[in-house]
Amino acid sequence: MRIALLQLNQIVGDLEGNSKRIENAAKTACAQHADLVVTPELSLLGYPPRDLLLSESFIKHSLEILEKLASQLYAVPMVLVGVAKPNQNIVGRPLFNSMALLHKGKVQQFYHKLLLPTYDVFDEDRYFEAASNPQILKTPGITCGISICEDIWNDTDFWQHRRYHHDPISELVQGGAQCIINMSASPFTVGKQEIRQSMLSAIAVKYQTPLLYVNQVGGNDDLVFDGRSCAFDKTGKLIARGYGFKEDIVIVDISNHTQSGIIEQDDFTEESEIWNALVLGTKDYAHKCGFSKVMLGLSGGIDSAITAAIAVEAVGQENVLGVLMPSPYSSQGSIDDSLQLAKQLGIRTLTLPIKNIMNTFDSTLQEVFADSVPDTTEENIQARIRGNLLMALSNKFHSLLLTTGNKSELSVGYCTIYGDMSGGLGVISDLPKTMIYLLARWLNTQRQKSIIPESILTKPPSAELKPNQKDQDTLPDYDTLDKILEMHIEHHKSTGQIVAAGFQLSIVTKVLTLVKNAEFKRKQAAPGIRVTDRAFGTGWRMPIASKLWQE
Amino acid sequence: MRIALLQLNQIVGDLEGNSKRIENAAKTACAQHADLVVTPELSLLGYPPRDLLLSESFIKHSLEILEKLASQLYAVPMVLVGVAKPNQNIVGRPLFNSMALLHKGKVQQFYHKLLLPTYDVFDEDRYFEAASNPQILKTPGITCGISICEDIWNDTDFWQHRRYHHDPISELVQGGAQCIINMSASPFTVGKQEIRQSMLSAIAVKYQTPLLYVNQVGGNDDLVFDGRSCAFDKTGKLIARGYGFKEDIVIVDISNHTQSGIIEQDDFTEESEIWNALVLGTKDYAHKCGFSKVMLGLSGGIDSAITAAIAVEAVGQENVLGVLMPSPYSSQGSIDDSLQLAKQLGIRTLTLPIKNIMNTFDSTLQEVFADSVPDTTEENIQARIRGNLLMALSNKFHSLLLTTGNKSELSVGYCTIYGDMSGGLGVISDLPKTMIYLLARWLNTQRQKSIIPESILTKPPSAELKPNQKDQDTLPDYDTLDKILEMHIEHHKSTGQIVAAGFQLSIVTKVLTLVKNAEFKRKQAAPGIRVTDRAFGTGWRMPIASKLWQE
Repeated sequence: MRIALLQLNQIVGDLEGNSKRIENAAKTACAQHADLVVTPELSLLGYPPRDLLLSESFIKHSLEILEKLASQLYAVPMVLVGVAKPNQNIVGRPLFNSMALLHKGKVQQFYHKLLLPTYDVFDEDRYFEAASNPQILKTPGITCGISICEDIWNDTDFWQHRRYHHDPISELVQGGAQCIINMSASPFTVGKQEIRQSMLSAIAVKYQTPLLYVNQVGGNDDLVFDGRSCAFDKTGKLIARGYGFKEDIVIVDISNHTQSGIIEQDDFTEESEIWNALVLGTKDYAHKCGFSKVMLGLSGGIDSAITAAIAVEAVGQENVLGVLMPSPYSSQGSIDDSLQLAKQLGIRTLTLPIKNIMNTFDSTLQEVFADSVPDTTEENIQARIRGNLLMALSNKFHSLLLTTGNKSELSVGYCTIYGDMSGGLGVISDLPKTMIYLLARWLNTQRQKSIIPESILTKPPSAELKPNQKDQDTLPDYDTLDKILEMHIEHHKSTGQIVAAGFQLSIVTKVLTLVKNAEFKRKQAAPGIRVTDRAFGTGWRMPIASKLWQE
Repeated sequence: MRIALLQLNQIVGDLEGNSKRIENAAKTACAQHADLVVTPELSLLGYPPRDLLLSESFIKHSLEILEKLASQLYAVPMVLVGVAKPNQNIVGRPLFNSMALLHKGKVQQFYHKLLLPTYDVFDEDRYFEAASNPQILKTPGITCGISICEDIWNDTDFWQHRRYHHDPISELVQGGAQCIINMSASPFTVGKQEIRQSMLSAIAVKYQTPLLYVNQVGGNDDLVFDGRSCAFDKTGKLIARGYGFKEDIVIVDISNHTQSGIIEQDDFTEESEIWNALVLGTKDYAHKCGFSKVMLGLSGGIDSAITAAIAVEAVGQENVLGVLMPSPYSSQGSIDDSLQLAKQLGIRTLTLPIKNIMNTFDSTLQEVFADSVPDTTEENIQARIRGNLLMALSNKFHSLLLTTGNKSELSVGYCTIYGDMSGGLGVISDLPKTMIYLLARWLNTQRQKSIIPESILTKPPSAELKPNQKDQDTLPDYDTLDKILEMHIEHHKSTGQIVAAGFQLSIVTKVLTLVKNAEFKRKQAAPGIRVTDRAFGTGWRMPIASKLWQE
C-alpha cells in the first residue's frame, strides 16, 4: 500500500489551475505506483478561500471541475481532493469542509471535517457545518482514518486545554482505522513544525498506527504554508518528510515502511525558518498578484536592507528596484550605505531627492501653519512625499511596492500612514526589530560576506526625518521594547503582568498606550507576512474607537 | 411587574464609564418603579469588544467592576448586565457570552448565550462557548425566559433556512417562561428594524407571551447600533418602542401592558434611516476616538458635499473644516460649488492650490518618466498630494480627516489609495452613488432649501484629475453599475446570474474584474460606516493574491 502526499502550492480561487496541478502531481505519483494519493485541505479551491466560499456559483463550478478531474484521473487508483461540499439540510451552515474520494473516474464519496478552527487567523465556523462522525476509507490494502487539519489538533493526552469536545482521531481508531491520514493547510509560524512533529508522533505512538500528514505550501496574502508533510510509523518514528517551503511529492509504503527518501534534517533555526518563509511569502504574493517586478525605498537602515535582500532572493536581482529619496536630513552615510547594499545585491537604484517637493509643501502650508511650531506633522509630510514617489513608480512601471516597516514600529505607531506604510505587502511587518538584526547577521554569515553592510548593522537606528533624530529619542531601547511587545501582543499580558515580569511601570504604560493609539494605522496597513504566533493581520481584530484598558 | 429596557450607548473597553452609565440609568429606572432592569448584550464591555476578549486580565477586571456595580445597585431590585464569563471547564472555548443578574448587592447568577453568530460582521465562535440550555429567571411577579441577541433569530416558523439546530425560545417557553426577554447588540442596516419587529411580533404571537427586546445604540467603528428597543404584548402588538439612534429608557408594565409612553412612528424611509445612521456613526467615531473636530476635502462633487452635511450634523458646523485643493484641472464651477456648499453649511474653508507641488513632482520624476506616456499615475500623484495636505492639517490641528469616497467607486477601485482614500473614517463608503443622489435630494427637501447646491446635483460626476474627465468615460452609468454591484456584492451573484438578469456580458465582466482587482485598495481602506446588508469591512473577507473566478 503506497500512499503519496502531494505537497502543492495552489492559488486561491484558481479552480482550473489547481485542478491541473493536482492532476499532474497525481499522475506523477501514480507512475511511482502510488495506490492512494492525498492532497492538502481544500486543495481544489486553495486555502484560505475566505468569502469566495459565500458564492454559490463558485462552489457549483468547483464541483463541476471536480467531476472532470475525476475522469482525468481514471487511471489513478484513489485520490483524495479537498473541496467545499454544500450542506443539503435546511438547518446548519452552508457547507462542509470535505475530502472527495476520486476512484474509477468518478467522485465516490465525501469525508467531512469535524473540528472547525475559529480563532487566530481561522474563521471556519463562518462557512462550515461541523460533521458529527469521522469517517473511514476502506482500501484493499488497509483501513484508513480520514482527518482534515484541525481534526488532529485536539488530542486528549497532548493538550491540557482543548477547544473542542470531540477527539476525531480516537473515534477513527475505535472505528477500525489501521492508519491515520491528515490533510492540512497549516500556516507557518516559527517553531510550529517541531510542535506538529512531536504531536503527530505522540498520536502515532498512542494508537500504535502509522500516521501520514500532508500540508500545503506557498504564500497566500499574510499566510505562508511551509509544507514539510511527514509520515510516522506506528512507533512514532519520522520515516519521511517533504521539503520545507517548496512543492514536493512524498511517497510512503505503509505496509513495509519504506519511502521515496527521507530528506535531511531541515535547518530549524529561527533565522533560517523566517528567511525561507519571508522569501516564499514575497515571491508568491508578487506572482499570484501578477507582478514580476518589485521595488522598495532604501533609507540606509536595516529594515529596507533586509527587505531588499529578501526581495532579491524572491524574484531575482534583475527584478528589484531600490529607490533612494534623500532629504536635507538624510546623512551621507545613509546614502552610501544604500548604494553599497544595492551593489552587494546587484539591484538597480534610482535617486530622487525630495528637497524641492518639501519646499513647495512648506510654502503651500506656510500661512496655515504660521502660528504653530514644527512637530511630527512636518516629518509625516516627508514620509508621504516619499510614499507618493514610490507609488508613482509602482503605478507607472507595474512594479509591486514592498513596505519595509518592522513589527516594533508598527506596534507603537512609529511609522507614517500613507508614508513609509505605503505598499502592497509588508515583508517584515511581523518581525521585531531585534529579530531583524539577528536575521541580517545570520544572512551575512550564511553568505560569508557582508551582504548587509556592517555600518547598517552598527549605527543607531534613525528615521532621519529631522536633524540628529534617533529612534531611541522617542522609544525605549529595542531589547526592552520588543520584550514588552511580545508579552502584550503574543501573550495577551496586561500592564500589571508585564511590570511583574520586571519592567518599569512608566515604560510599560507608555508602550501599551502607543500600541492602542496606533490601531487606526494598523487597520490601514498592507497585509504583512506572518511569522510569529500573533501578527497584526487577520489574526488581530481590535476595536479602534474604544477606551484604552490598562491594569 | 415593571421592566426597564436601558438603551445605552457604551464605549468598547471603557469598563468604568460603561458601569457608570448602567448605574445611572438603572437608578433612573428604579426611581420610576422598575422591578427588573435589563441592558444590552455585553453592556459592561461595549459591543463588539473583539480581541479585547482575549485578554484574561481585561475579563478579570470586568468581573471586579461587575461586583462593585452590584453593590452600587443594591437598591435596584434586579438588574441584568451583559458580561463575558470565563468557562471553567478545561474543554471548550474560553468564555461565555452572558447576562449577570445583580440582586441585593451581589452577582447572583449568570445566563449564557446559546447561539453564537459567526457570519457577516460577527465572530462569536472565536471567543465564546455556546451554552446548551437556555435559562429561566423566576421573579416574584413573573417567570422570564432569558435570551441574548442571536438566541431569538432561529425561529423554526419564521425562517426557512436556519443556521442553528437549537431554538432557545421554544425551549424557554417549554421551560415555563411567561415572558421572553431578549438583550441585543444588533447592528443597523437599512430595513432591519422592520424585519426585527415582524419577527419579534410573530414569536410573541406563536407562544402567546409578551416579548421585550432591548438593543444598544451608538457607533462603534464600522457598525452603528440603532436602538429602537421594543415591547410586544402576547397578541404580538407593539406596545412600546425606544428612540432610534439615541439613548433611551423604555419601561413596560408586563402585568397590565402599560408603558412609559409609546413613541410616534419612526420615519422608516431609507433616506431618513441612512442619514441618522451616518450622523450617529460619524459623531460617535469622532468622540470615542477623542476628536472634537473633523475635516474633509471639498472637491465640488456630491460625495464631499453630502459628507460635509453629515459632519455638520454630527459635530456642529463650528467643528468642521472644508479644504479646497484646486489643480489646473479643477473647474471654476467646482470651486464655486464648494464655497457655496460651505456657506450653506456655515463651515470654515481653506484653499490650498496644488499646482506648485504638482510641478515639483513632475520635475522630480521627469527624467524617470521621460520614455513613458501619461496615464493614471499622474492622476494618482495629484490625489496623493491632496491626501498629504489633508493629513498634514489633520496632524497639526488634531482634526479627524473624513474620507469622502462612495461604495460604487470603492467597489471598482475608482479611487486613489493614499490619495482620496486617506482618512480615519469612510462616512459614505457603504453608500452607492445613486443612493447618495437620493439622500442629497431628501436632505434638501427636509430642510426646504438647497443645502446641497443644485449644480452639484445636476452636473456630471468627475474626478477632475485630467482635462474634461468624466466618471462615465471609464465606468458604466451609475444606475447600471450600482445594480450590478448590488447583485454581486450583497447577493453573491456571479457573472452568469447577473447577465441572466438582463445586463450586458461585456459590462458585467468588466465590473466584476474591476471589483476583484481593487481588493488590495479596500484592504487598506479606512473603516466605513455600514448601512447595507454587505459592506466592505469586517463583513467582507476576500483574498487578494487569488485568481479571479468568473462564470
